[in-house]
Amino acid sequence: MSDGLTYRDAGVDLDAAARAKARLAELVEGTRTDAVTSRFGSFGGRFRSTPGRDLVASVDGVGTKLKVAFLADRHDTVGVDLVNHCVNDILAEGARPLVFMDYVACGRLDPDVVTAVVAGLARACTSNGCALVGGETAEMPDFYAEGEYDLAGFVVGEVAYPALAERAVREGDVLLGLASSGFHTNGFSFVRALVFERLGLDVSDPFPGSDRSVADVLLTPHRSYLACLEPSLSGGRIRALAHITGGGIPGNLDRVLPPDLDAAVRTSAWTPSLEFEVMARESGAARDELFRVFNMGVGMIAIVPADEAGTVASETTAAGCETFPIGELVGGSGRVRLLT
Amino acid sequence: MSDGLTYRDAGVDLDAAARAKARLAELVEGTRTDAVTSRFGSFGGRFRSTPGRDLVASVDGVGTKLKVAFLADRHDTVGVDLVNHCVNDILAEGARPLVFMDYVACGRLDPDVVTAVVAGLARACTSNGCALVGGETAEMPDFYAEGEYDLAGFVVGEVAYPALAERAVREGDVLLGLASSGFHTNGFSFVRALVFERLGLDVSDPFPGSDRSVADVLLTPHRSYLACLEPSLSGGRIRALAHITGGGIPGNLDRVLPPDLDAAVRTSAWTPSLEFEVMARESGAARDELFRVFNMGVGMIAIVPADEAGTVASETTAAGCETFPIGELVGGSGRVRLLT
Repeated sequence: MSDGLTYRDAGVDLDAAARAKARLAELVEGTRTDAVTSRFGSFGGRFRSTPGRDLVASVDGVGTKLKVAFLADRHDTVGVDLVNHCVNDILAEGARPLVFMDYVACGRLDPDVVTAVVAGLARACTSNGCALVGGETAEMPDFYAEGEYDLAGFVVGEVAYPALAERAVREGDVLLGLASSGFHTNGFSFVRALVFERLGLDVSDPFPGSDRSVADVLLTPHRSYLACLEPSLSGGRIRALAHITGGGIPGNLDRVLPPDLDAAVRTSAWTPSLEFEVMARESGAARDELFRVFNMGVGMIAIVPADEAGTVASETTAAGCETFPIGELVGGSGRVRLLT
Repeated sequence: MSDGLTYRDAGVDLDAAARAKARLAELVEGTRTDAVTSRFGSFGGRFRSTPGRDLVASVDGVGTKLKVAFLADRHDTVGVDLVNHCVNDILAEGARPLVFMDYVACGRLDPDVVTAVVAGLARACTSNGCALVGGETAEMPDFYAEGEYDLAGFVVGEVAYPALAERAVREGDVLLGLASSGFHTNGFSFVRALVFERLGLDVSDPFPGSDRSVADVLLTPHRSYLACLEPSLSGGRIRALAHITGGGIPGNLDRVLPPDLDAAVRTSAWTPSLEFEVMARESGAARDELFRVFNMGVGMIAIVPADEAGTVASETTAAGCETFPIGELVGGSGRVRLLT
């Protein structure tokens, strides 16, 4: 294929989103109260009621991964995506989830679909030890196409690992990549344009190079890193966590860097799983573009002291999540460098 | 007009929504943890981190009122609707707001529109003393029509008036109605069908019987009852609050009734404001249907001991919200009776 498919071609303008975000920061900062203990741009909003006990809240949606659920008529996985995404976000701020609430909006309520969505939410809440304490199911005629819906969720957790919010990382710290379970919830405009339009595949077709269906590969839920990171977090062996979502490694790892350090990521240190290889090969997109759109096989990055890296990698791998060194912190200016 | 316009005609099936809600209750109850201190069906989900200090979370959307904002190209009021709606919901559980987060989803991000929406959210957060600690702005190509968006929000507050959650109401208690500012965020499928389709009005036309435009009347924001109720709440003079939203007085006041009391609401005790008179006259809908769809001029109901009713009505009216007796609690079976 001669021309690379870029994320902008696929209908999402990340630059416009970034510009709007800057304009919003000022509005948001203007509402700050004494209860707030975080800054704009964190993975979650941190606040306190009782002194000494901080809470972290975060909100997210599932994005256009929902369109794949519609095509496959499979609605019990997107709730898992949403809960795990939110849980990972507040984990990066050192918090364990307490409660979750959802927002489901549709044109006309299909009780079977809504029940399947909530069953997914409930299953993921239970496995993360958090309670689903409510939700809003909005019927909005003329907003959503027949059979479609949007889904957003909101988590509140309490800070269990306060050191994570400090991000006291140092030169020489090791970057450990925790394997993703696939696309998670990002890059689906790109995925859909490539898989359904360019390649002309149907959800029931085999995914290229795989004996799993397109639906099975694309709908694999976003994984939660809570359980597998707990041993190392409890042991105080992790200095910072970056949840790799929209913007990829470059757009998320930079959020935990101090202004005098760069993250040197050796992209040859691991082999992205099959789905990312297919995206690269079939789109012809440049490496940097792919790393902005996708997690490329790394869904969470833990920054750890060099002498703890082996222990942390063993602990998280033993707890069920393959973990591998992908680079280190070096002198710099707060940037993420993608090396070969 | 010979045939009454019902809410089902206008595209919203409240019965189907109620059936799905029952099926969801079981799923939600299955995720309960020790942190949860509320039951399914409350105005907000109550939970605790530190023993003795409870928090309440709630989620809501703006619904199809957004369509009026699109028609009027006015985007700085819907955020006020959303924040105030959420604040009123947790106030009914005895909580004052701490933090708010929003979810804005659109097909393509228009920075001016998103900034106007967030400006409304920020203004309302500030006036309710709560902080906007984050949000998600999702660009979802192919989900939303050009120029349209959906907006949902989540609030977390801390319990300041714990007695409200007990709902220790008694026979003879007085129902005080607090004036709404108009439609608030409910009944807009009905409003839109009547105003734009049946009456053929444009947003810039005068609203029938008014010198205000259709846009001005329809987009008047949902009011917050926090400030006007605080004097009476601090004085311990209120036993329960019911926030009158979707389902109207019958569908919300019943949530705070014990199984052995009815709420006798004398609908002749107040005159619904102009917009509700127009809905009644032009639709020909039956009184009970109107009271299910609209707040009919009463956005919050306070249940107070009879000997405190005069004081509470004076305090809330003095604090800026007209308040009037609309009935009382009588022996019964947990039902709301609409009397003439």
